[in-house]
Formats: sequence, structure tokens, C-alpha cells
Amino acid sequence: MDESFITLEFKEDALYLIDQRVLPATYTHFTCKTYEDVEFAIRDMVVRGAPAIGATAAYGVYLAAMQFAKHKEFKAELKKACDFLAKSRPTAVNLEWAIRRMWDVFLKAEKNPTEDILSKLKAEADEIRAEDIRTNKEMGRIGNQVVPQGATILTHCNTGALATAGWGTALGVIKEAFYDNKDIFVYADETRPRFQGARLTAWELTEAQIPSALIPDSAAATLIRDGKIDLVILGGDRVAANGDVANKLGTFALSVICKAYGVPFYSVVPLSTIDFDLPDGSLIPIEERDKSEVIFVGDTQVAPLDMEVYNPAFDVTPHQNITAIITERGIIYPPFKENIERLRRGESL
Amino acid sequence: MDESFITLEFKEDALYLIDQRVLPATYTHFTCKTYEDVEFAIRDMVVRGAPAIGATAAYGVYLAAMQFAKHKEFKAELKKACDFLAKSRPTAVNLEWAIRRMWDVFLKAEKNPTEDILSKLKAEADEIRAEDIRTNKEMGRIGNQVVPQGATILTHCNTGALATAGWGTALGVIKEAFYDNKDIFVYADETRPRFQGARLTAWELTEAQIPSALIPDSAAATLIRDGKIDLVILGGDRVAANGDVANKLGTFALSVICKAYGVPFYSVVPLSTIDFDLPDGSLIPIEERDKSEVIFVGDTQVAPLDMEVYNPAFDVTPHQNITAIITERGIIYPPFKENIERLRRGESL
Repeated sequence: MDESFITLEFKEDALYLIDQRVLPATYTHFTCKTYEDVEFAIRDMVVRGAPAIGATAAYGVYLAAMQFAKHKEFKAELKKACDFLAKSRPTAVNLEWAIRRMWDVFLKAEKNPTEDILSKLKAEADEIRAEDIRTNKEMGRIGNQVVPQGATILTHCNTGALATAGWGTALGVIKEAFYDNKDIFVYADETRPRFQGARLTAWELTEAQIPSALIPDSAAATLIRDGKIDLVILGGDRVAANGDVANKLGTFALSVICKAYGVPFYSVVPLSTIDFDLPDGSLIPIEERDKSEVIFVGDTQVAPLDMEVYNPAFDVTPHQNITAIITERGIIYPPFKENIERLRRGESL
Repeated sequence: MDESFITLEFKEDALYLIDQRVLPATYTHFTCKTYEDVEFAIRDMVVRGAPAIGATAAYGVYLAAMQFAKHKEFKAELKKACDFLAKSRPTAVNLEWAIRRMWDVFLKAEKNPTEDILSKLKAEADEIRAEDIRTNKEMGRIGNQVVPQGATILTHCNTGALATAGWGTALGVIKEAFYDNKDIFVYADETRPRFQGARLTAWELTEAQIPSALIPDSAAATLIRDGKIDLVILGGDRVAANGDVANKLGTFALSVICKAYGVPFYSVVPLSTIDFDLPDGSLIPIEERDKSEVIFVGDTQVAPLDMEVYNPAFDVTPHQNITAIITERGIIYPPFKENIERLRRGESL
């Protein structure tokens, strides 16, 4: 049940990331020795997935602290590095969340000896990473409750070990159901334009030997209409206080089809993905990425170079289209606003 | 207003096709000297698009007739060649329609001297090609009536000159509106897995200098929801007698989103695409294509080689999701079954 690979690992003063840009054809690591390396790795999608980005950024802050520990403007430089890291990708809230946690640790320790500050920052980054894995396992256990025996599940993008510090969010639930002998079958959307479903989810599914098939994103609708999908389980990059979910481009369309044909639709996210201060999804910043992602696949040109391209990385699914949001603290059902507020106040669901 | 390229052309005893597999990076021709070449060209998608496939197959029958004219089993061999060509791709009905027209010409002329048979077959193939261009222009003129001034139009797959003998079906309407100074803007879905939108439609749009942008298929839903699309115009590969439309994978999902958000949805097809004998869309054979189309883009591997893939080339949009079907004989509005029956009987709409 354990992964044979480690998405991110800090050792010998460097952060080692599986280079997710070149999977599955090539399995190699990308080494971050500076916070600038970390910023690049997040921006260029060496690492992606909201929880993985959070843990990676935490180590980025620690690397920045090591770089600036002897600088006379340590605090100011570290703050600048935090802001720089926070801007690497705008949509996933876990990035800000992890950086804020690291910054709070710094603020509490800033009068201490440098060694102590660094040691506390390292411990916090390690804790964010470890917590993410624990949280994932808990979401898997809880989410498994909504998976019927023999279910055929559709998922989108990658939400597995590669999207997190380990195990996974939505794909964690799917793995839990598989290891619970639920005799599941998984359809994975390829997830254009970056092919996270084809390159990463399909790789994790084949590694785990989970019965599955890859489909072009557009094939999902007919499967849903024809009753071939029992439930859709996917992740989330930022959840607003009313339950609207920003997630990988393609999620919203799936939610409309599911609603039209009565298929349950679940988003699996850790609490760190919930932006309790954001009233609704219309306020979530949607990252637009470069046209080259659409015009080229590897070295192959698939469109005219001078064609304009609109390439949003995410879309927003209104809470009305969502059956439930699965977290490590339980399953949030409608009314989402009230139930998310209860979570915020630390009450049970 | 005329194309600077010719999709298919018969000269010097061979059929010359623009090789659509390698556009837009490479512009080259594929030469068919035998009906087997033609079958390969259709099956491997050197040429695609229901009307273009029809005209291509007609020349395929003529090439077969030239090959077998001196064979003692001319008729039997020609029939075998027709059946072979008809099986090259199962979904588009124009293929069967064109081959049946050629076969009927043969049957009427079979007692005549060989030279006369060949001459009549060549004339019929030329007529199918010429008719297609005339028909396209007429659909463009009629379809332009539904395009408002200043409209933003979404289209899917390629339905332009490349999908036909010339001009285009849905893209023909779009071009007509553009040249009619309607100040339109076009969003083109890239159309996975074969990228006909990215490779072919984007190429035709940039060649014609029509203001436009390319999007990943999954980006269409948010544009539709946010009121950024005034109408969707796309083609069709086979229309059933009740108005259900089989078209390129992704069409059905678009139709559900359009219906949910009240955006008009038009299919543009010549009468040769209507299968008057087929009661409804559930009976349309849906071609499943090879997994390599999804696992590779050019030489780039985007998924594990041992992953199962489900790769249907088309899907079926129920007539309830369609605003109207535009033909060279007029615009078919609901009730589709009754109005298609009127067309079949030769009555006006």
C-alpha cells in the first residue's frame, strides 16, 4: 500500500522533486538548492497539485532562510522570498497557507539564535509534509465510505501521491477503495493541456495495478450519460466559503454533465485547500498559462504559431453541482456555507 | 473569398489529397493511385470530414474501376472494392452515400463499353465533388442568417474547406459571416485526440485572417457559462431521422453545457449526411480508434504504454439539445422528425 516513489524529499540541504514534466516517459529528479529553484519548480510545474505545492513552498521558505540567515536584512529578505514564492502560481490556496505557516514560525522565533530559527523552520516544513500524508490517509479512509462496491469511478487531473506529499487526495480515496477490495474500475481523463491525467494518474494507476482506462477529456460525457460512471471523484485547488471549488480546467464541464444525468460528484481536499475568507468562487484568481502549452506537445507543433490561445489552468465549479466535499475532518454535504462555517469554528460536521 | 488550397483533386489518373495528418507544421500532398491508397487515406485520416470522405471515396471507386476494367470479373471486383472502401470508417454516412451513387452509375452503365463506364464514373465523382462545393456555399448563405452582428462563435473539430471538397460546412457559415462583415470572433476547440481544431481549423482561420483564439476543449464550458459565446456552430457526421447528430467527440458535452446555459447550438450538414433510414442516434455506429492516438502526440509519449485506452472518435448529441440543423435546403427546426421527413419527401421546410 506504500508508494514506491517519493514526490518531494529534503535531504543534504536540498529539496529533491520527482520531475513531473517528463513522466511517464522519463523518471528523474529535479534538485532545488535555493528558493529560486523552488519558485521555478512550482511555476514550471516540475511539481504540481495543491498539497504538493504547499509542502514544496514550505521547504522553499526554509531554503530562503538558509540563504539569508547571515544577511543583515534577514527578515526583510525572507519576507521578499516568501512573497516571491507565493506568486509562483495564483490559484491553489495551499501555497499561501504553507508560506504563512512558515512565516508565523519565523515571527515567533525571530529573536532566537539563527540556528534555532533554522531548526524550527525545518521542523515546520517537515511537519507540513508529514501532516499532508497523514491528512491524505484520513481523507482516503473517510472518502472510501462514499464508494460503492464494484463502482466505476471517473477522475480528472492528478490527485495522487504526485499531487501531494504522498498517497493523494481524490486518488487516495480511489486507492483506499481498491485496497479495500471494492472491485473498482477507474476512468482517468487525460486532462489537457498538461496531460496530468495521462502522464501522472495513468502512471500511478498502472503502478498500483488498479483496473483502469485513460480517455480523452471529451469522452467522459457519453460515459456519464450512458450510466457507465457511478461517481466522479476529483480534487480541488481552492474551495470558497460557500463550497464553490476551483480545480483543474475541465472540472466544471464534468459537473454540469453529472448534474444533468444524476451522477454523484465529489471533491476531495484537505482543510488547507479551503479559503475560509473567500465568500464565493467568482473571487478565485484563475491562472492563465502560456500559449505554448496548447500549441506544442513536446516537440510536436499542433497549431499555427501565430494563433491566439486562451489557456486558463483552472475553472470554478459552483457548489450547486457538487454532491459533497470530502476532507480529513469529515464529509461536507450541503448546505455548504453553513457546514464550512462549522468547520472553521472547529465544530464537528 | 476563394481557398488558396484544394483539399482533393483528381488529375493525371491519380487523386491528390492535402495530407491533413501533418498540418499545420507541414503542407504536403498524398497521392492515391489505387483504390487501396484511397482506403488507407480515409482510414489513416490523411483526409477526414464527412463530405470530404464522401468525395474521396467516389474517386476511390473510379480508381478501382480503372484497375479492374479489363478484369474478367470487373463487376464482382468493383463491388468488393466498394465494400472495402465503405468499411474504411464506419460513422460518417457520406461515405456509403457516395459509394452507393457511384455503384448506381455503374449498374446503369454496366452493359456499355468499358470506356463509357469509366467516363460516366469519372463524371459522377467530379459531380459529387462539384456538388459538395455548391452545397457548402448554399449552407454558408443560409447559415449566415442565424449569426448575429458582432457574434462570438464557438466551433469544434474542423468543418472547413479541409473537411469538404471546398469551402466548408460549419466553418463555411463562419466564413460567410466574416466576409459579410459581421465582425465576428471565433473560439476553436482544439479537439482531442487528433487536434483537428488546433491543426486544421486554426490553420484555416489564420489563413483567412478571421479574428479567433484556440482553446483546450475543456475551456469551452466556462466561456459558455460566462456569456462569452453567442452561439455554437459545428458540423455533423451522421444525422438520424429524428435529428440526433453524431459528430466529433466532444460535441455532446458542448450541447449539454449550451442547453444548461441557454446558448443556441447549430449543426451544419449537407443532406448527404442525413441518414433518413435511421430512426435515432443510438443506432449510429461509433468508431473506436487506436490507443496510440491518445498515448502519443507526434513522437511524444504522454501516457504509459501499457495503459488501457477508450478512444471513441464520435459521440451522439440528442436532438433535444440542438437548436437547429442547417442544410443546403434550409434550416431544420424542431420538431426535427417531422421536418426531416418533409425534406425526405422533397417538400420545402
